[in-house]
Amino acid sequence: MNLKTLSFSVRIATIMLLPWNVVSAGDTTLYKMLLENGAINQEQYEQLLKYNELQKNEGKMEEEVSKPKVDTQVKANVGSNNFQYKIGGRTMIDTAFYHDDVTPLNNSTKFRRVRLFIKGKMFKDWAWKTQYEFAGSGTLKDAYLKYMGLGDTTTLYLGQFGAAGSLEDSNSSKYITLMERALPVLAFSPATRYIGMGLSTYGNNWSFKTTLAGENGKTDELERDGLGLSGRMTYAPWHENDRVLHLGISRTFRIPRGNDTIRFGTKPEIDSNNMLIDTGRITAVNSYSIFGLETAWTRGPFSLQGEYIKTNVTRENISSLAFSGWYFYGSLFLTNESRPYDVMRGDFGRVNPKHPLHKGGVGAWEIALRLSSLSLEDQDIKGGKEDNLTLGINWYVNSNIRFMLNYVKAKVKDAVTSGEDENIDIVGIRTQVDF
Amino acid sequence: MNLKTLSFSVRIATIMLLPWNVVSAGDTTLYKMLLENGAINQEQYEQLLKYNELQKNEGKMEEEVSKPKVDTQVKANVGSNNFQYKIGGRTMIDTAFYHDDVTPLNNSTKFRRVRLFIKGKMFKDWAWKTQYEFAGSGTLKDAYLKYMGLGDTTTLYLGQFGAAGSLEDSNSSKYITLMERALPVLAFSPATRYIGMGLSTYGNNWSFKTTLAGENGKTDELERDGLGLSGRMTYAPWHENDRVLHLGISRTFRIPRGNDTIRFGTKPEIDSNNMLIDTGRITAVNSYSIFGLETAWTRGPFSLQGEYIKTNVTRENISSLAFSGWYFYGSLFLTNESRPYDVMRGDFGRVNPKHPLHKGGVGAWEIALRLSSLSLEDQDIKGGKEDNLTLGINWYVNSNIRFMLNYVKAKVKDAVTSGEDENIDIVGIRTQVDF
Amino acid sequence: MNLKTLSFSVRIATIMLLPWNVVSAGDTTLYKMLLENGAINQEQYEQLLKYNELQKNEGKMEEEVSKPKVDTQVKANVGSNNFQYKIGGRTMIDTAFYHDDVTPLNNSTKFRRVRLFIKGKMFKDWAWKTQYEFAGSGTLKDAYLKYMGLGDTTTLYLGQFGAAGSLEDSNSSKYITLMERALPVLAFSPATRYIGMGLSTYGNNWSFKTTLAGENGKTDELERDGLGLSGRMTYAPWHENDRVLHLGISRTFRIPRGNDTIRFGTKPEIDSNNMLIDTGRITAVNSYSIFGLETAWTRGPFSLQGEYIKTNVTRENISSLAFSGWYFYGSLFLTNESRPYDVMRGDFGRVNPKHPLHKGGVGAWEIALRLSSLSLEDQDIKGGKEDNLTLGINWYVNSNIRFMLNYVKAKVKDAVTSGEDENIDIVGIRTQVDF
Repeated sequence: MNLKTLSFSVRIATIMLLPWNVVSAGDTTLYKMLLENGAINQEQYEQLLKYNELQKNEGKMEEEVSKPKVDTQVKANVGSNNFQYKIGGRTMIDTAFYHDDVTPLNNSTKFRRVRLFIKGKMFKDWAWKTQYEFAGSGTLKDAYLKYMGLGDTTTLYLGQFGAAGSLEDSNSSKYITLMERALPVLAFSPATRYIGMGLSTYGNNWSFKTTLAGENGKTDELERDGLGLSGRMTYAPWHENDRVLHLGISRTFRIPRGNDTIRFGTKPEIDSNNMLIDTGRITAVNSYSIFGLETAWTRGPFSLQGEYIKTNVTRENISSLAFSGWYFYGSLFLTNESRPYDVMRGDFGRVNPKHPLHKGGVGAWEIALRLSSLSLEDQDIKGGKEDNLTLGINWYVNSNIRFMLNYVKAKVKDAVTSGEDENIDIVGIRTQVDF
Repeated sequence: MNLKTLSFSVRIATIMLLPWNVVSAGDTTLYKMLLENGAINQEQYEQLLKYNELQKNEGKMEEEVSKPKVDTQVKANVGSNNFQYKIGGRTMIDTAFYHDDVTPLNNSTKFRRVRLFIKGKMFKDWAWKTQYEFAGSGTLKDAYLKYMGLGDTTTLYLGQFGAAGSLEDSNSSKYITLMERALPVLAFSPATRYIGMGLSTYGNNWSFKTTLAGENGKTDELERDGLGLSGRMTYAPWHENDRVLHLGISRTFRIPRGNDTIRFGTKPEIDSNNMLIDTGRITAVNSYSIFGLETAWTRGPFSLQGEYIKTNVTRENISSLAFSGWYFYGSLFLTNESRPYDVMRGDFGRVNPKHPLHKGGVGAWEIALRLSSLSLEDQDIKGGKEDNLTLGINWYVNSNIRFMLNYVKAKVKDAVTSGEDENIDIVGIRTQVDF
Repeated sequence: MNLKTLSFSVRIATIMLLPWNVVSAGDTTLYKMLLENGAINQEQYEQLLKYNELQKNEGKMEEEVSKPKVDTQVKANVGSNNFQYKIGGRTMIDTAFYHDDVTPLNNSTKFRRVRLFIKGKMFKDWAWKTQYEFAGSGTLKDAYLKYMGLGDTTTLYLGQFGAAGSLEDSNSSKYITLMERALPVLAFSPATRYIGMGLSTYGNNWSFKTTLAGENGKTDELERDGLGLSGRMTYAPWHENDRVLHLGISRTFRIPRGNDTIRFGTKPEIDSNNMLIDTGRITAVNSYSIFGLETAWTRGPFSLQGEYIKTNVTRENISSLAFSGWYFYGSLFLTNESRPYDVMRGDFGRVNPKHPLHKGGVGAWEIALRLSSLSLEDQDIKGGKEDNLTLGINWYVNSNIRFMLNYVKAKVKDAVTSGEDENIDIVGIRTQVDF
């Protein structure tokens, strides 16, 4: 390969690996000279400029990096074919201080999430993603294939991906308002990743997702293997830039596998080394179902969000069980941002500070207060009850880096670890970057 | 850095990250204008066009993406130096239903393979690859350095890579015709990845590979550590576009390490939780050798392929052992594709559907039937015998996505799991994407 | 997207993924024609050429790939924003032959390091890195966020990264002169990666780094969890191209966590399956401190380097302990290269052969001789003493590939594995590539 062919081949590009596009503006100098010298006429000059303009539009910084979807960054389509790649990930480092009561909750600094993914698009209608969690002992998170050829608004999923269910559980951990999801979401986790099939679709103000979910790759200490069918429907009567009303309902039906046991439990709302409430293994389970109601409202910098989740367990020759919980929180951006709603997914996306640090601003500042409650007690199951009050301050330095400070006051009744009531205070700090 | 220098630096490119090349055709507009206006003459115009033509040739969609070799995608050579990277991987999701006989073979959905690799080329003659298997508990697959400075057709390998041996075992799992390799290939796996050195070379109608293979990174439950020397020679009397005759012979000699034990066993031809035939640990082993004969024939949409593999084990103060097996299969593309032969490697590559789905076609459809047989019984070793009949239907949606449906009828004599003869029916479905 | 806009969008580039820049020189043909035909005048022609010259400067092969810092490869800055990615890694394959004495040290071929990283820069002042070690059972190495907005020479670290301490321990394993670091560096490893915060800064001839280091993600078999404060200060009275004098001092103070135990031990200077000297668990530890003195000197192809490291352990109600060791080595490049000094980090970087193989040269050849000594005996702790003599030959094929041959003569007094004195000879070969 000589230098001349090289000069051409170097224009080959990797479109998806960059979140922004860049264009060549240098040729305009030549055009101008040629016009001035009469080598081309005004009309030709303008035509060439128009090309350059196209370039610039093509290349202008993507304003809407806030959208958490693959597709917004998947643009180039070469002829009838395409092959695109994107690499990324997230790192969350938590430091937590526990003023424990009876059960010891050790102060710690640890990686909460260290994920890398590679995803891409091929042949117009197909996309794929592989994501691995390096924190802890390592877990395969996503590994799926998407088919988008059923229509503009419909996507078919094959592989391991999150099941349908719950606003907060569907929402990426990169975008949730407080460090951890709320107690009932953590305990029932309706959007757990399983291997299966799924279909998602949306309209102007609604979204729908249904999943047929089997097992998952990891050894699940909370015994959720089996087969499940889930659905989630969301409706947003209005969703303008900074005014959103979101309503949603979800339902999961699962049959456990093998030894017919399930288990629900959760740590407090800052990750710790002990689950204080926990059903333990519930045996002789025929099936269980999770039912969720969700709502959210934003108006400018204010937002409210809440969910109610109820889980019913039917058992062989024993009476059925019911556990339920709820959470409710309010958030306020002191710097006047608004939580961005994604109607296609029926959840919230990336916060882009109006005045990020690198532009001389203070970033975005948000305060939030959440109340949550969960009971894991019913009949013979004495899993304890817990109420959490969580106060959070978020500092979004820019679109991709935020620092979180959370204070959690946890009141536990009949903690399974101690058998006693406990009053716990926890302070947590998170450093988060996603790329 | 100002905008002008930026406009130049953006032409920098990552050549290897894309499987296709793309060229700038926009300059021709300017050339045409200049010609029409008399600013350049016809000869100059043609010279400029010729450059553009070079570009187009350079950039035309790679027709031969079917070749499974790194090198076909490693093209750019900058001055005397070069640095290229390619990222990719494969995901295979299997669902299997077992009608087991005595030994339980649990129905399951699981990841058969979830691999990511990064590979590249540097300084003209050197290339490297690192590939990791994320399915299961995680395994380092490839980690090697290649040197290509010994001549155009010769490659030296250093590191962990597949040893020389067997057509089907050498063939990438992305391109094998049925979901799993045949019984004797699975049991003896002559092309296991070890740390060592290798040399491969080829001519117009032959290929040769030899490897000096030590241990491998993983804890090998089948006890293959030690030191081995392998060689494989293939010869293709003819190999036109759709007419191929392939002949091959391979031989491996290995000395086990440490406790001098080896073990051969295999699951049926759809991956399951139990090995039904298995020699168990053979002790006091001095050395063992694997001898393979292979042939394949394609004529348009038809192809035939078969191998015979025999393994001899010499033992300290005990008589030697011999185990052997064979498989034979035929395949037919209903949509008239032909299995593409790679004479440089002596194996088969990627199937490119003539009418892929994204161009409005039906993809490629292939049916295949395989018979295979393996005996792991000799003298004191009662490892069982197994015959499998496998029927497969493959749907290649496009070059990189295929769905596979396999039915396996397994007849086992003296299954080691039950001590009985067993008759098993298995149905498997695979979703496969590679990128 | 039609072909025309494509022709523009393909100029989009991935700047960070390549260590070199490439420019388009093809346009000059057009400029020349236009000049000859009078469509542009001489002045305009020269202006256009000047642009091209800028391009060439922009794109010329980076001469200083030797600098091991992220930042030298992070250049493009788009508007007020930037998003850059770089992928890379290293593979080191070791074969070692042990002539052991009493304790068995098994001959082996294994991966010493197989690392991949992804790192990047965002929003002007921020950078991040995630690096994973795939060799062995897998370990998360780096996962940190860097802030560079405190000034041109100051960097703040958040996350998991190497603590401050020791010249050889700070130096990347890609650039150390012998296969393994010296005995006292291995045993006390002051630059272990922990989760914490750090600050590094430098001047014309000095560097300073301080870290507040907590725990680390892995289960550390050598019991180093806890909280520590470290600092390292280096000073180079002169550091011209090939004449360097480096002086340094470092200090670490750590408090162990939980069961208050620590442990120091090391394998010989070629990695093996047994630690011959080892304090075992030292209990009732209040705190320990590591004190290090370091110096290095280069003059053309010659270099000398040495360190003294002393560790004090204070114990509850028992007298304190002190262990210490040192190493000293000389190296000579037969091919006249010089070890490149990085004053910003106070360590040494990548060796670029003057005559690499791909340019018809012999690569760089280096010989080195090291003496090292370590005592892990004090009062009740009988951890043994060891002296190593290591002779090394390095062949740098090019900037990124080197082969190493090391011979180690180890003399051990009171080896903990055998209770006896041992005399061991080890030969090791390393194949190293980094990309």
